[in-house]
Amino acid sequence: MSVESRLPERRAIGWYDGKIQFIDQGKLPHDFEVVETYDWRVLEAAIKSLSVRGAPLIGIAAALAVAAFAQKSQQRVDIANVIQQLRRTRPTAVNLFWALDRMNTVLHMSPEADLAEVMLKEALDILQDDEARCAAIGEAGQDVIEQSSRIITVCNTGFLATGGDGTALSIVYKAHDLGKEVHLTACETRPLLQGARLTAWELQQSRIPFQVIVDSAAAGLIRQGEVDVCIIGADRIAKNGDVVNKIGSYQLALACARHNVPYYVAAPFSTVDFDTPNGESIEIEYRVPEEVTSVMGVKVAPEGIKALNPAFDLVPHELIDGIITEKGIYRVSEFEELSSVGE
Amino acid sequence: MSVESRLPERRAIGWYDGKIQFIDQGKLPHDFEVVETYDWRVLEAAIKSLSVRGAPLIGIAAALAVAAFAQKSQQRVDIANVIQQLRRTRPTAVNLFWALDRMNTVLHMSPEADLAEVMLKEALDILQDDEARCAAIGEAGQDVIEQSSRIITVCNTGFLATGGDGTALSIVYKAHDLGKEVHLTACETRPLLQGARLTAWELQQSRIPFQVIVDSAAAGLIRQGEVDVCIIGADRIAKNGDVVNKIGSYQLALACARHNVPYYVAAPFSTVDFDTPNGESIEIEYRVPEEVTSVMGVKVAPEGIKALNPAFDLVPHELIDGIITEKGIYRVSEFEELSSVGE
Repeated sequence: MSVESRLPERRAIGWYDGKIQFIDQGKLPHDFEVVETYDWRVLEAAIKSLSVRGAPLIGIAAALAVAAFAQKSQQRVDIANVIQQLRRTRPTAVNLFWALDRMNTVLHMSPEADLAEVMLKEALDILQDDEARCAAIGEAGQDVIEQSSRIITVCNTGFLATGGDGTALSIVYKAHDLGKEVHLTACETRPLLQGARLTAWELQQSRIPFQVIVDSAAAGLIRQGEVDVCIIGADRIAKNGDVVNKIGSYQLALACARHNVPYYVAAPFSTVDFDTPNGESIEIEYRVPEEVTSVMGVKVAPEGIKALNPAFDLVPHELIDGIITEKGIYRVSEFEELSSVGE
Repeated sequence: MSVESRLPERRAIGWYDGKIQFIDQGKLPHDFEVVETYDWRVLEAAIKSLSVRGAPLIGIAAALAVAAFAQKSQQRVDIANVIQQLRRTRPTAVNLFWALDRMNTVLHMSPEADLAEVMLKEALDILQDDEARCAAIGEAGQDVIEQSSRIITVCNTGFLATGGDGTALSIVYKAHDLGKEVHLTACETRPLLQGARLTAWELQQSRIPFQVIVDSAAAGLIRQGEVDVCIIGADRIAKNGDVVNKIGSYQLALACARHNVPYYVAAPFSTVDFDTPNGESIEIEYRVPEEVTSVMGVKVAPEGIKALNPAFDLVPHELIDGIITEKGIYRVSEFEELSSVGE
């Protein structure tokens, strides 16, 4: 079902002539395939199977799937049913529910005759809003990137995870576009290897110089003075500035603190949850042990052993130099103040 | 070539009725196979292919291979030639050269008529010396293990790496044998996964409760108060107490220091190199990028990318609470003194 890509450079999803095109991330890094479809069920399956992943991208994909269906059927009840089905694809990503809520609101506020048009407009707005947010984060982050900064990161925070250039990686792309001679070290990010598989693939397309390391090699590299700045993404940010992000984020923070390397978090402002007082009150997801005991389908440990598989790390705010958002860079000390003025 | 094992529990190599038996570690953790041979070339191939690995075990295996050959040929020149060939199997492990030097000395000091007997005696002495050293390290380490200590380690430092119960793992085995209810967390140890493959397999045999984690999950586990003590092995210890050990050792040290978890190194006293003033003067080996970009033969990153693959970490002495040797536990501050009295 692979088609000729009409996606622009550094984009993972788009809408062309009544159809959705998206990169099948399940095939990466070994094969690059773009799927073209007007069938919302193809998107449903792609989200479930992680062929489309990354919290912002999942929301966008689901919204586009609803819009595609609304081109064929303007029955409100049928569209509402599709929205319900898509809610069940992934349990955790808040962006999925947020995007589908937006689609649902438009569905119930518009005349049936207009649904094809307004649903598509809303989905494209969601996509474009995210693209603009990524660009603004990329701009804001330039304040922490020098002419030849050596940057370290974990997981995938690039165009494969968002509607634009990404969050942390958007800053790297922007620096490169501005002619800065940046270099990126991508931690491979066990267990699911988003760094080795996805970030490496993205950077290879871009011609930005980079290297991959095993996660545990990061501290030694930082000790040797080979890293100028660390920028990671965020899954959730508490009111006090504590950050929850991919496992491996905390060991990076400890090494940076020890060796006075600045440590930044790049995320849209919506990632800050002012109802959560601190990181300790955020529940960490533990995933299946098989992600640890096998790698891309190959068993690497004896049968029947116990493996502990926390998906996320808590990084306490005192180890974070700043949070780079689409509204600028905030010091953690500014967070309490922001929340009290109702941001 | 798999045979019925005559190896005692927790032993990786032995000599029975004129033949060597050894566990084929290349088959672990999925298959347990013991190879029996009197052919030194089988050992040569096993060392080269990592079917026999672990610095002390390689030395023992090479010595036994020479002894096996000496049972067939008592020609000094032929035995010397076998010793030369075995020197070329692995470039780095100092124990290999040390063991072959011992065999070479005996070769040149004994009458040809006695060579079969004296060469075998020397090889078995090397094996038994190492077994005794492991036991003494296990005993000495009990001072840092409580009744129900939760221990964390990296790499494989057990019977698969030595002639006895191991170094760091010997302490865990001894604690378990003494009825302490210890629990071990094994870091998987990317890139070559000695923790997930070998330590997990060893512990599974022993019935000591344990779990495997990805390396980058260690810091979070330590932050949560789930670890009482860290014990690692050592590849080389400098005069000032700096330790070089498997990559991942430094991030463990940083997390332990941050959360006041004691951090110990277990190693035979011969690992201390009094000619090396500090860790910075020890060259770190960088290995092939393919170890990072593939896992057990499966490619996990795009073709043609750059990967940096340091095999070892430097742990500065100020992060180490003590070094557990067969002669007892030394504080790092005692090292300079030891060296000045000619230890």
